[in-house]
Amino acid sequence: MTNSIYSKGCAWINGEFMPVSEAAIPIADTGFTHSDLTYDVVSVWNGKFFRLEDHLNRFERGWKRLRMNPPLTRSAMQDIVFDCVAKSGLRESYVELIVTRGIPLDGERDIRKFANCFYAFAIPYVWIAKPEHQLNGINLVVANGAQRIPTTSIDPTVKNFQWGDLVQGLFEAYDRDAFTAVLLDADGNVTEGPGFNIFAYHEGRLITPPDGVLQGITRATVIDLADEIGIPCSIEPLSAAQLRTADEILLTSTAGGVMPVTVIDGQTIGDGDPGKVTMLLREMYWEAHERVQWTSQINYEQPALESIA
Amino acid sequence: MTNSIYSKGCAWINGEFMPVSEAAIPIADTGFTHSDLTYDVVSVWNGKFFRLEDHLNRFERGWKRLRMNPPLTRSAMQDIVFDCVAKSGLRESYVELIVTRGIPLDGERDIRKFANCFYAFAIPYVWIAKPEHQLNGINLVVANGAQRIPTTSIDPTVKNFQWGDLVQGLFEAYDRDAFTAVLLDADGNVTEGPGFNIFAYHEGRLITPPDGVLQGITRATVIDLADEIGIPCSIEPLSAAQLRTADEILLTSTAGGVMPVTVIDGQTIGDGDPGKVTMLLREMYWEAHERVQWTSQINYEQPALESIA
Repeated sequence: MTNSIYSKGCAWINGEFMPVSEAAIPIADTGFTHSDLTYDVVSVWNGKFFRLEDHLNRFERGWKRLRMNPPLTRSAMQDIVFDCVAKSGLRESYVELIVTRGIPLDGERDIRKFANCFYAFAIPYVWIAKPEHQLNGINLVVANGAQRIPTTSIDPTVKNFQWGDLVQGLFEAYDRDAFTAVLLDADGNVTEGPGFNIFAYHEGRLITPPDGVLQGITRATVIDLADEIGIPCSIEPLSAAQLRTADEILLTSTAGGVMPVTVIDGQTIGDGDPGKVTMLLREMYWEAHERVQWTSQINYEQPALESIA
Repeated sequence: MTNSIYSKGCAWINGEFMPVSEAAIPIADTGFTHSDLTYDVVSVWNGKFFRLEDHLNRFERGWKRLRMNPPLTRSAMQDIVFDCVAKSGLRESYVELIVTRGIPLDGERDIRKFANCFYAFAIPYVWIAKPEHQLNGINLVVANGAQRIPTTSIDPTVKNFQWGDLVQGLFEAYDRDAFTAVLLDADGNVTEGPGFNIFAYHEGRLITPPDGVLQGITRATVIDLADEIGIPCSIEPLSAAQLRTADEILLTSTAGGVMPVTVIDGQTIGDGDPGKVTMLLREMYWEAHERVQWTSQINYEQPALESIA
């Protein structure tokens, strides 16, 4: 069922498949005008979804927290993303599912009464840092400017597009000749950056922040893999000072996997090469994309969806 | 030039006018996927823009703070919104202008290199609370749940769509049988609510919070009008306790004007009728929509725009 019009990506908008270049959100959807939505991103690697069930569990929890009722069942959404990937023919893909609050009709202001919307698309796999860049390592800063939005204002475990603080962090990174930034909370503890979680490795132990961050699936995978090879991982507050003196630093994201940091705040980490533990976890991470219990094979010849109105 | 296909609203998207029902944002625009944008809303009343120059000044300051370069000059944007209104034929309209970061091309991650986008639309005037509702007064709660996003994370003076905290406030209002909510900051001071600024009137004096809030044009107008009639207005921190014991409370928004509050946290304010000072300011506010220095006449017969590529 692969079709070349979808080779740059296939989207599902308002009940129709279309090339992603034609996919658009109604300007009146409060998913746009109030960023009132949740979403998830799943990767496809070598023709298989990775940890799809875990992503869908997080996605479902998110829309329930926002008190939304998507117009389709979870199972139908799953069929749609299988078909987006199959139509695109992409073997490595970045697959996004979005539920928005929807469009106010006839001046209605009561957001409980809006018809929520579902959108999805599959595009070629997205890398926060490309593989060749990863092998050199990422130049990271701890943002001095914007603080991460506190959990008392927005729950970061409900995956969202409200990136005002993270975008400020990115500009600060550029101004300081770095590639990206990690943000602190009001107590000076490390949280997360634009699109990634962070781990420090120090004296035989991984540390990653417990809250104020997305509960990333790649983060969870690194915790699982570290356990398999007997590296203890502490989920506990991580200060900026601890981060700066770590033996290794790594970033995790569905868009790029396990990514080594080699420079922090202008200082080289260790000998300047990606850390050994980081590179071992990175190798294990990509190998794990063939594990049966974590993967869902895409059938590129047979649609998952028979018919949805 | 009024055309009935635009009677529900006219939008400008990617260089073309279209009915607002057809207006859509590319799903890949980071104005959607990272809410990376600023916008402004101007009202048209009786065929005239109200304080358009002030709105455009704020809008321009916003996109500069976000380090964006819109694809059109400010003057061209102004011509476009004049024409959106003229084409719609709407004498009372809610007119929105948006500049977004735009679309990443070919896997580009450097947001400095994105081509920023401009969108605009004019729709029938939007009321946060309809006039008949305003005459009864609004039932408001001070949110106990979500705190307003602090200015250390997102600058509220750059008008934005990142409403996660405000939407939580709305749901709390519904759960407490109220109409809307005002949010506190981490120090327990009053900030703003979903789409409005707030004033307390107490013992002959208006008070409105200084920062952590949008510098609203309706807020500025109320400050100006109060000055004209000799009511002092203090721009200073306002505690929740002060708000609850105020003689009168009023909300201000381009979407509804000056709106009386008659119930706060379930308690009736005064005798339960809209306050006298509030209603005087409300009357002056609507009369001010005929003042020459604050209005810009729309020519419904002659396009403002000759040609834009």
